[in-house]
Amino acid sequence: MSTSNVERVANATPVLVRNQELAAANYLAFEADRVLAVNLMSAPGAGKTSVLEATLRALGGKRRAGVIEGDLETTRDADRILALGIPAHQINTGTVCHLDARMVSRALEQFPVGGFDVLFIENVGNLVCPAEFDLGERLRVMVFSVTEGADKPKKYPLMFHRSHAVLLNKIDLLPYCGVSLEELTRNVREVNPDAAIFPVSCRTGEGIAEWVSWLDAQIPGE
Amino acid sequence: MSTSNVERVANATPVLVRNQELAAANYLAFEADRVLAVNLMSAPGAGKTSVLEATLRALGGKRRAGVIEGDLETTRDADRILALGIPAHQINTGTVCHLDARMVSRALEQFPVGGFDVLFIENVGNLVCPAEFDLGERLRVMVFSVTEGADKPKKYPLMFHRSHAVLLNKIDLLPYCGVSLEELTRNVREVNPDAAIFPVSCRTGEGIAEWVSWLDAQIPGE
Repeated sequence: MSTSNVERVANATPVLVRNQELAAANYLAFEADRVLAVNLMSAPGAGKTSVLEATLRALGGKRRAGVIEGDLETTRDADRILALGIPAHQINTGTVCHLDARMVSRALEQFPVGGFDVLFIENVGNLVCPAEFDLGERLRVMVFSVTEGADKPKKYPLMFHRSHAVLLNKIDLLPYCGVSLEELTRNVREVNPDAAIFPVSCRTGEGIAEWVSWLDAQIPGE
Repeated sequence: MSTSNVERVANATPVLVRNQELAAANYLAFEADRVLAVNLMSAPGAGKTSVLEATLRALGGKRRAGVIEGDLETTRDADRILALGIPAHQINTGTVCHLDARMVSRALEQFPVGGFDVLFIENVGNLVCPAEFDLGERLRVMVFSVTEGADKPKKYPLMFHRSHAVLLNKIDLLPYCGVSLEELTRNVREVNPDAAIFPVSCRTGEGIAEWVSWLDAQIPGE
């Protein structure tokens, strides 16, 4: 670790410690409400909102779901979720490249989540910083587009390493983008041997049932 | 702008001001050396290194080029450039999600750039923070993968807004990913009417000659 990096970590620590305290409070609130909070992360355009739409459709009337959307600007993603008849709340971060526990804590004041079985928190599209800021979630789920290349788990290891499930999305594009699913899966395994890995396509629906079945099993019983 | 965002900008300002001072020093050093410094930015996996490889091949022996690579971990990108016989220097940022002017300034101590006509500085893959930290570059060039979706210029406006050129990469995948190049181009124009826009494919080579011709015209004469 270089000197500048040591300096940076030292400077950043109070911010991260304070975030952990707020995240712990959110976590306890979610547990008290018996709602499964899922922090959904990815690089921009990997398909988080499309995965969410497919997941909400597949959960159907079986589970009560709510969504908190994080974006720098616009309410497009919340609008897409509301169009499905699912309650959604938009956080606009302005220039901040990730959600943090305080933003979620403030959102919860306006958006009560006690009636949900599962709360999806869609993070800002960014493959780096969201992985450093816990929100109080019980599950971290990452969407990775296979078109981004098989080498990315090694180049951006933290999010892969910290995710409970990794969805390898856009597999319908595999024949056209020259990426090996085997190599990509091997690279994910290398930085995270424990993650559940689901190759999926939101366009064809392939793999969505397997992912949703895994997710459903994580939701606390009555 | 929300309160938390106002607070954040106030806290961030000294960091950004200090960065601007160091960036200005880098800028003057590049100008004194008559080297065109290009800050190459994109989300992860949009194809910065592939664009760079195609660009270096197209510039051929005509221009002397050097490359500074920024990555969290690994020297894969620098290795790809060195394999082309082009001088390259790797910066590993550890957990930092963008290059800053200080990192570049330190790299220049070990990697003299006076003999180059053009210096490419490949930033960390991130669609947000790199756009906030100037490195001393004269040109900001952004690579955007069409597979990331036509709505992204509106959701992540800053990098699009600040770029002198926007390369819309992977256009060979357009028939398969349901993205409209017209809509994407319109959305880029909306946040940046002045940017030069180049639809390209590193796999087929389409559009690379137009981009390289534009770039070549920016290199200072003898």
